[in-house]
Amino acid sequence: MFLGRVVGEVWATKKAQDLHGLRLLVVEALDERREPGAKKVTPVVAADPLGTDIGEHVIVAFGKAARVATLGADGDYAFEAAIVGIVDDFDAPLAPARWRTEKIQERGKGGS
Amino acid sequence: MFLGRVVGEVWATKKAQDLHGLRLLVVEALDERREPGAKKVTPVVAADPLGTDIGEHVIVAFGKAARVATLGADGDYAFEAAIVGIVDDFDAPLAPARWRTEKIQERGKGGS
Amino acid sequence: MFLGRVVGEVWATKKAQDLHGLRLLVVEALDERREPGAKKVTPVVAADPLGTDIGEHVIVAFGKAARVATLGADGDYAFEAAIVGIVDDFDAPLAPARWRTEKIQERGKGGS
Amino acid sequence: MFLGRVVGEVWATKKAQDLHGLRLLVVEALDERREPGAKKVTPVVAADPLGTDIGEHVIVAFGKAARVATLGADGDYAFEAAIVGIVDDFDAPLAPARWRTEKIQERGKGGS
Amino acid sequence: MFLGRVVGEVWATKKAQDLHGLRLLVVEALDERREPGAKKVTPVVAADPLGTDIGEHVIVAFGKAARVATLGADGDYAFEAAIVGIVDDFDAPLAPARWRTEKIQERGKGGS
Repeated sequence: MFLGRVVGEVWATKKAQDLHGLRLLVVEALDERREPGAKKVTPVVAADPLGTDIGEHVIVAFGKAARVATLGADGDYAFEAAIVGIVDDFDAPLAPARWRTEKIQERGKGGS
Repeated sequence: MFLGRVVGEVWATKKAQDLHGLRLLVVEALDERREPGAKKVTPVVAADPLGTDIGEHVIVAFGKAARVATLGADGDYAFEAAIVGIVDDFDAPLAPARWRTEKIQERGKGGS
Repeated sequence: MFLGRVVGEVWATKKAQDLHGLRLLVVEALDERREPGAKKVTPVVAADPLGTDIGEHVIVAFGKAARVATLGADGDYAFEAAIVGIVDDFDAPLAPARWRTEKIQERGKGGS
Repeated sequence: MFLGRVVGEVWATKKAQDLHGLRLLVVEALDERREPGAKKVTPVVAADPLGTDIGEHVIVAFGKAARVATLGADGDYAFEAAIVGIVDDFDAPLAPARWRTEKIQERGKGGS
Repeated sequence: MFLGRVVGEVWATKKAQDLHGLRLLVVEALDERREPGAKKVTPVVAADPLGTDIGEHVIVAFGKAARVATLGADGDYAFEAAIVGIVDDFDAPLAPARWRTEKIQERGKGGS
């Protein structure tokens, strides 16, 4: 699992049967978004079973975990990434300051 | 899953039995293509069950999800990547502007 | 599995059912934390079945291994990363000196 | 799956039982080899069920797909990467020119 | 699987039950160790069923393959990386010269 931020949504008319009805969000790993000059950003596409808003911080899981989080059990489904948690706050005193967004910083419990 | 762009097609005469009849496309992660000076591009090879054109934006899935998308179920197949969706549009207001191609920008619903 | 350091904790009210009751820690790969100017840090989120403190060095495992370490067996659970060991010490004579933290260096058995 | 080039072969006397009799090749992702100053090359080791020559372009698959391609079915085998196709040619008009080797360029069907 | 070099060993008193009795080594991907100024090294932790010495070149496998190599079969075990082969020699005429260590170069069968 990784800590990321929802940066957008994606739509596809032609897609695998199992993706119909799934909301698909684009997520960037947290650290990468925070560096404007960063050379590489990974645009992960994740199913969203939680009703996440653009801009929110999330925990993304892959593989079986993503299918369980979205549909309640693993099975023959054509996706392998999902948002498994919407982050309320995180306390990362040893992490780079740039991991924190304004939104989360306002809530206190800061990681100075 | 990741958001990418189809940059080409690949042909192999000698290959695993299960790959016969599968169209194999070369996909770059979206962000990477947009940076001419980027040091690292990952040429993913994905099965294409959707009839994707060169240049189109796609969602690529790995592992079981790729086999389900291509053959309807998981099983003992010799591939682990497939295009699971052809992107019509995406709205990524928080993503770098360079993620958008001209083609998609023309369609409106911009992410500026 | 990789060698990392716990840099923080993360909380989520809205999350997959299986994540309730799990402590979720943020872990950085060891090498990355040691380079202040590094361009890319991967904020892995891992379940913590061992009672790890912030700042400790850990071994993180993914997939089935993470579920076994946390719940004693694999199953349909919505997570795929966990701390499987808290590092007492490591002897890495051929690794970069910066991999060692002060805390571990004080314990002797150095890798200089 | 990724598109790579076979750069060498590796021998091991002490190895997991399942690796006996398997030819093990070293493969570099295509893009990386093409950049002399690239900072990071990933030396993937893949089983070769196809009789690939050093220097040839290949498609490499991981996990179950690698075991199926090598042994006809998945099972408890101690490897997770294999060459699943030897590339005859590829047409990648949108990919960097440096992806093409001299060998393949000579065959025509160029991607210029 | 990837080609790496054992750079150290790691000890953990508090760990998942399945890790007791397993020797845990720290492995760097080969290419990365060879570049002193490289920005990113991945300290993989792998179980060692083969009695590998520090400094030796190894083939590391992940997931099911790692469990099979270590315990003879897959199962609910809390690890997902293992050394599956100790490299005697490798012949990589197309790979960067820095991939070779002194130790292996002395044995002849060079890749120059």
